[in-house]
Amino acid sequence: MKNNQFARQTADHQTVIKELTRIHFLDDATSHAPTVSTAYRLLLRKAFPHVASENTFAWKLKNYLATPVMDLQDFLSSDLPITADVFYLAALQLLDFLPEVDYDCSKPLDAMTRIQLPMIASDTGAWDREQLLDAWYLLLATHTKNGQTYLDKLTNFGYFVPYYSLPVAQKPLFFNGKAQAVFDTDKLIREVVYVESSVDSDQDGQLDLLKVEIIRPRDTNDGLKVPALFTASPYNQGTNDQAGQKAMHPVNVPLTEKRPNHSTLAAITTEQPSTDRLAPRPVAGETQKACESFSRERSYTLNDYFLARGFAVVYSAGIGTLDSDGIQTCGDPQQTAATIAVIEWLNGSRRAFTNRTDNLAIRAWWCNGKVAMTGRSYLGTLATAAATTGVDGLKTIISEAAISSWYDYYRENGLMIAPDGFPGEDADVLAIETFSRMKAPADYQRIKPFFREQMEKMAREMDRESGNYNAFWDARNYRKMIKNIKCDVLMVHGLNDWNVKPGQVEKLWQGLRDVPVTKKIILHQGKHIYINAFRSIDYTDMINLWISHELYGVANGAKALLPDVIVQDNLTPETWTAYSDWAAPNQAKKVYYLSKKELREDALADGVLSFKDCLPDAVFQDYAAHHQHWETALLDKKEHDLSENRLLFQTTPFVEDKIIDGRVTVHITAASDHSFGMLSFQLVDYGEAKRLTVTPTTIQSMDLGYHWREDSLREFTQASDATAYKMITKGHINLQNRENAWCTEELQPGQFYPITFDLQPTFYRLAAGHQLGLVVYATDFGMTVRGNQELHYSIKLATSRIDVPFK
Amino acid sequence: MKNNQFARQTADHQTVIKELTRIHFLDDATSHAPTVSTAYRLLLRKAFPHVASENTFAWKLKNYLATPVMDLQDFLSSDLPITADVFYLAALQLLDFLPEVDYDCSKPLDAMTRIQLPMIASDTGAWDREQLLDAWYLLLATHTKNGQTYLDKLTNFGYFVPYYSLPVAQKPLFFNGKAQAVFDTDKLIREVVYVESSVDSDQDGQLDLLKVEIIRPRDTNDGLKVPALFTASPYNQGTNDQAGQKAMHPVNVPLTEKRPNHSTLAAITTEQPSTDRLAPRPVAGETQKACESFSRERSYTLNDYFLARGFAVVYSAGIGTLDSDGIQTCGDPQQTAATIAVIEWLNGSRRAFTNRTDNLAIRAWWCNGKVAMTGRSYLGTLATAAATTGVDGLKTIISEAAISSWYDYYRENGLMIAPDGFPGEDADVLAIETFSRMKAPADYQRIKPFFREQMEKMAREMDRESGNYNAFWDARNYRKMIKNIKCDVLMVHGLNDWNVKPGQVEKLWQGLRDVPVTKKIILHQGKHIYINAFRSIDYTDMINLWISHELYGVANGAKALLPDVIVQDNLTPETWTAYSDWAAPNQAKKVYYLSKKELREDALADGVLSFKDCLPDAVFQDYAAHHQHWETALLDKKEHDLSENRLLFQTTPFVEDKIIDGRVTVHITAASDHSFGMLSFQLVDYGEAKRLTVTPTTIQSMDLGYHWREDSLREFTQASDATAYKMITKGHINLQNRENAWCTEELQPGQFYPITFDLQPTFYRLAAGHQLGLVVYATDFGMTVRGNQELHYSIKLATSRIDVPFK
Repeated sequence: MKNNQFARQTADHQTVIKELTRIHFLDDATSHAPTVSTAYRLLLRKAFPHVASENTFAWKLKNYLATPVMDLQDFLSSDLPITADVFYLAALQLLDFLPEVDYDCSKPLDAMTRIQLPMIASDTGAWDREQLLDAWYLLLATHTKNGQTYLDKLTNFGYFVPYYSLPVAQKPLFFNGKAQAVFDTDKLIREVVYVESSVDSDQDGQLDLLKVEIIRPRDTNDGLKVPALFTASPYNQGTNDQAGQKAMHPVNVPLTEKRPNHSTLAAITTEQPSTDRLAPRPVAGETQKACESFSRERSYTLNDYFLARGFAVVYSAGIGTLDSDGIQTCGDPQQTAATIAVIEWLNGSRRAFTNRTDNLAIRAWWCNGKVAMTGRSYLGTLATAAATTGVDGLKTIISEAAISSWYDYYRENGLMIAPDGFPGEDADVLAIETFSRMKAPADYQRIKPFFREQMEKMAREMDRESGNYNAFWDARNYRKMIKNIKCDVLMVHGLNDWNVKPGQVEKLWQGLRDVPVTKKIILHQGKHIYINAFRSIDYTDMINLWISHELYGVANGAKALLPDVIVQDNLTPETWTAYSDWAAPNQAKKVYYLSKKELREDALADGVLSFKDCLPDAVFQDYAAHHQHWETALLDKKEHDLSENRLLFQTTPFVEDKIIDGRVTVHITAASDHSFGMLSFQLVDYGEAKRLTVTPTTIQSMDLGYHWREDSLREFTQASDATAYKMITKGHINLQNRENAWCTEELQPGQFYPITFDLQPTFYRLAAGHQLGLVVYATDFGMTVRGNQELHYSIKLATSRIDVPFK
Repeated sequence: MKNNQFARQTADHQTVIKELTRIHFLDDATSHAPTVSTAYRLLLRKAFPHVASENTFAWKLKNYLATPVMDLQDFLSSDLPITADVFYLAALQLLDFLPEVDYDCSKPLDAMTRIQLPMIASDTGAWDREQLLDAWYLLLATHTKNGQTYLDKLTNFGYFVPYYSLPVAQKPLFFNGKAQAVFDTDKLIREVVYVESSVDSDQDGQLDLLKVEIIRPRDTNDGLKVPALFTASPYNQGTNDQAGQKAMHPVNVPLTEKRPNHSTLAAITTEQPSTDRLAPRPVAGETQKACESFSRERSYTLNDYFLARGFAVVYSAGIGTLDSDGIQTCGDPQQTAATIAVIEWLNGSRRAFTNRTDNLAIRAWWCNGKVAMTGRSYLGTLATAAATTGVDGLKTIISEAAISSWYDYYRENGLMIAPDGFPGEDADVLAIETFSRMKAPADYQRIKPFFREQMEKMAREMDRESGNYNAFWDARNYRKMIKNIKCDVLMVHGLNDWNVKPGQVEKLWQGLRDVPVTKKIILHQGKHIYINAFRSIDYTDMINLWISHELYGVANGAKALLPDVIVQDNLTPETWTAYSDWAAPNQAKKVYYLSKKELREDALADGVLSFKDCLPDAVFQDYAAHHQHWETALLDKKEHDLSENRLLFQTTPFVEDKIIDGRVTVHITAASDHSFGMLSFQLVDYGEAKRLTVTPTTIQSMDLGYHWREDSLREFTQASDATAYKMITKGHINLQNRENAWCTEELQPGQFYPITFDLQPTFYRLAAGHQLGLVVYATDFGMTVRGNQELHYSIKLATSRIDVPFK
């Protein structure tokens, strides 16, 4: 195992004393202990909060080795001095590492170094009290084998239970710059309010009321003001899986010719009003007490962790969901306005009611007005949307695997391109799936006619036929408003996420370059997943440092301590590296020319290569039903069903590791034998290797507090079998959209056209000995329409190349 | 969806009144409501415990349909009568079923019938108060779409929170024969005691102390005596995965000739003393207060559910585990004696101490002395072991996927046969893996020499070389003591469990026939899994009914209400059927004769068929690394790598469905071309079908109480792809163990021997149109040694047949 901690602060001795005193490890007894050894025993004593008697504690110490031949109880009863070897041999055990498996008992310091666990500087001699305290402090801030700090482990044993009753003036409590679990999760208050938004998306003549679920520490009733982690999740009140399934669009349909439209960006950019000028509801009175609670919210475990640490958590599913008004609009400005209504309420500038009938107003009187948004996918998307409004009170967003423009989620360069694994899904399908008012049959019956009409309108406007960027999609492009962002932005994305593709975050990252806010990005090797319970990286600690700073104003140096860019390595497990940038503009790119089967550095080749798109029916049916079969076959160098349906080019093996950082540009001169056509490209790593598994492996269960909720600790591990290749990145283009996604051009059958476009961005380490490959094809069984048409494509080699941004 | 509830009691009106009053649905207001409609509204009002205001409640009712065109709020404000249609349309919604997806709003009664939801008998007219109350009672006891009763759903909403403060005289509280969640899980008491066992398995001259983790309701501090659910799990204090992996035995080794041994059963049956005659520890005093607690035990979610319902839960890992004395013995009499020591303590006849040094005794003063054992696999095995001692206090065991004889877990008919998925595992490997004292490095260092010596002894005694049943295995055969069983036994087993094979439970079931206790068995379509969170069966309710009766003495008719045998159907999803018996002795069996490629009903064929066992190295390596590849290929009718390594016989297609109930007997006349050999047999269902998935599908998260722990609701679903065949059952035999597993006989190369033995038992519905197949082969890549030897086997058709017990 390798430990990677980015959120651990370095503390000087004065801070060590202050903070150890604050969390009661350092007290009179420890300060005045006659020997260093006695002081160490007193520190250890407090690390066994579940042991009530001294004799039991003494016996527990007999489980630990202080030296390869003496247990800790015997050692501390002797007058042998504490040395680095003794302290760190015990530390490895306290941190749950195992002798023989993780370390050699006679060489604890070697293991500490190898596992990347921090140590204080020390020579081989006996430690003094100052060294002991420094080392203990550092140990508390160090991760155990199970992906949490040692202090978090003690927390899960009940260390902070006595702190539950501290007066609110002493709460929250921070250690090493991060908020600690001094809030009693058994006493959390759960309440529902209905925020009055600024929109009337169901056009019933009333501003839409939004159900908001709040969980806050009991201490807020005693005057503590806490910040809020707000997760806007359209899934939160349930989803209509069957209705969504039924609404899926057929994808085994032909690609067709589009009429040239001479469209311009200006023509499709229309400012849509996002708010309605309706009178707000009258206020009959005001109260501090909600009149509705809830049982088990659909929670994000990262939020759960912070509920024990002095943050309120707020969930809202927004317009068009169960117990709220409105309809689902899939990312339009109304949805953004409704999302920020909750923030405005938390920040004191918008009204909420206790229910839908009594007009009793209720303020977020327990909130300090500061809000961070959290969540992945659609949830992170709404965080991004909210940030682009510059709404007051929103101090930061932590957007994970978020969409920054909906066109890029369902389309690409004039083509329908489905998110991976969801062929046939589109904006209307997602709207139907998340329209959880359907779950309240009587409510649904009332809204059904309007909703159906809106869905028909959406189906027309999203225009599956052309696949073009138009006014519908422009209204759902948050990147147009990046300059409005006032909050700090922490982005997280999987480099193997082909649901929300890496380009979504890369374009946000690029757009934020000139915006005067702090931005950080973490790129992992996962698909569309959360990384808050990964063993090898202290993600939760980073977020703790970040929001302790952003929402509580703790001067913990978070912005300087956290690297701007962290990337998980794709070759070596458990390796996360800090970089100063990703996909920097104006990178030098290495050019590879396409020749017969090769990617060559030296020169252009002559000639034309062709491939077909049609498949025998049985093969087609198999791939259509199991697009994983197609994915595997497409990249296989061997002759097979698909050999004539693709062109495959490869470099010679690389002499040393190379990192591709950013977007590969494709320049290709291509022709279709019809008046329409599409091209797809995959950049491929060819070389036998045991690669990281696509899905993380679950290691064990993990507590998020003392007798509180749990999560599953996970990690990417190396697959037991080697594979011959791996797709690095991909891209697709409609040959009638050679200039951009909105302007449809004519395509003459047989005529060659130059095409230039970027594949999805990446950060990929290509191992020495491997070859870089490019596969050119048309139908993508996982993403495009699948017409199985008699189409042929040709590539003119003389003017075809790729530009690769090696780091 | 189809609902199957076996634990729902039928209640007469008097019981309905009494129990509805007990849980406060029926109160003065409801009794004296002016109309049935008003009474219904009052019942509904209590079903929204999370709603504090009347106006909010009224608005919630507007979410529900009372008729296809009127919402429930409007309906209850009218003077329209309550009818079955109205009540059950609302009921379907309260039970979380969805219109359009699950039912047509105009035909609620049809849906109730189709989903197998119970209704009261009624005509089409207006209901009276009595009908309303009967229907409401029945609704509370009916499962929602999410696998729990409606009352459990309300529990999860906080319905029983006001009951937490009831005086202990009114606790526990039963409804419909089952204990309800009136215990505050935030206030559970967690404590550790050290039970002094009757054995000294580490031979240190002191009786082994066993760490026991107890969780009990706070109400026990106020005088309530509760029964205990005891789970004995050697895994409970952690496992040594790496050490276990390292201890695995090689399986790519040849099968070898065994020397005839003329052994008899009498010769290997030696009574081993299970307890040591050592003086118990002195007692320095007695206390009621433990001095050690714990944070998060490794729990079984079924136990978690009952922690809210008036049961204590007790976990102990037993001898040879972290913080306990002793060594791991893998199922020997010492382990059994140590297991029942905990029960004896709970029942008042054995001593425990607060820690290991102070000699302060502590009684289970909070326990009513009644114990049930729970858990799967090794856990269920120890429950079975405990039951065979007849220990006082043990009222019932619920043994899931349990071993009844360790020989049958690691051996079969004179062969080493690994549990599926764990080739190379053996008794010593499991002992090493579960010896969690290794996790306390200093403790481990002290015990290591003795433990290693014991492991070497175990490796000798278990005798991998012969694979025979011997004194070592005889000491680990609990079935010898079945007649001692005094407690009732509820068994659960997967018909597709090839880890702990179905024969383990079948032999226990057969052995219990004449034992005067109540025995029940549930056979599901899973592998080695728990079924307590399956949507289609009320397993948890059955256990609740069972233990409310066994441990609290509630006269709920559990023994009569629960069927003796419940089997999940392998063809139709969500279908569980009650039967009176399984694998009844002296069943008539249908005979199929082996002829060239056929299983024929009519006559014996002449001739000899042969097959080889050796494979080309590349093929062998692939199968050795991926035994799933081998499993799939072996049964494939097509010509392939394995075609010459097996004989395949098939019946003609069946005209109608047939159920195989019990054990298929193989009579075969076989020869090896060497002086040793083995034969394997698989019974196969041939026929294209979409079969149930091997692994259950997770549906959603499920609460086990109010703000308490959670589980994942699961179900077997039909696979999306059809498969051509499925293995029904299998069996293996060493040709030198033709008579029994202990006596090794000579095998003359080339000589034919008659062999008769039983395959593992099953309960399998063979669909009309399918064919029954028999595959005869030798090396089983998933279970036997894999020597890749030049061996050839021959079968004489004239005297070969199988006897199939069709139901």
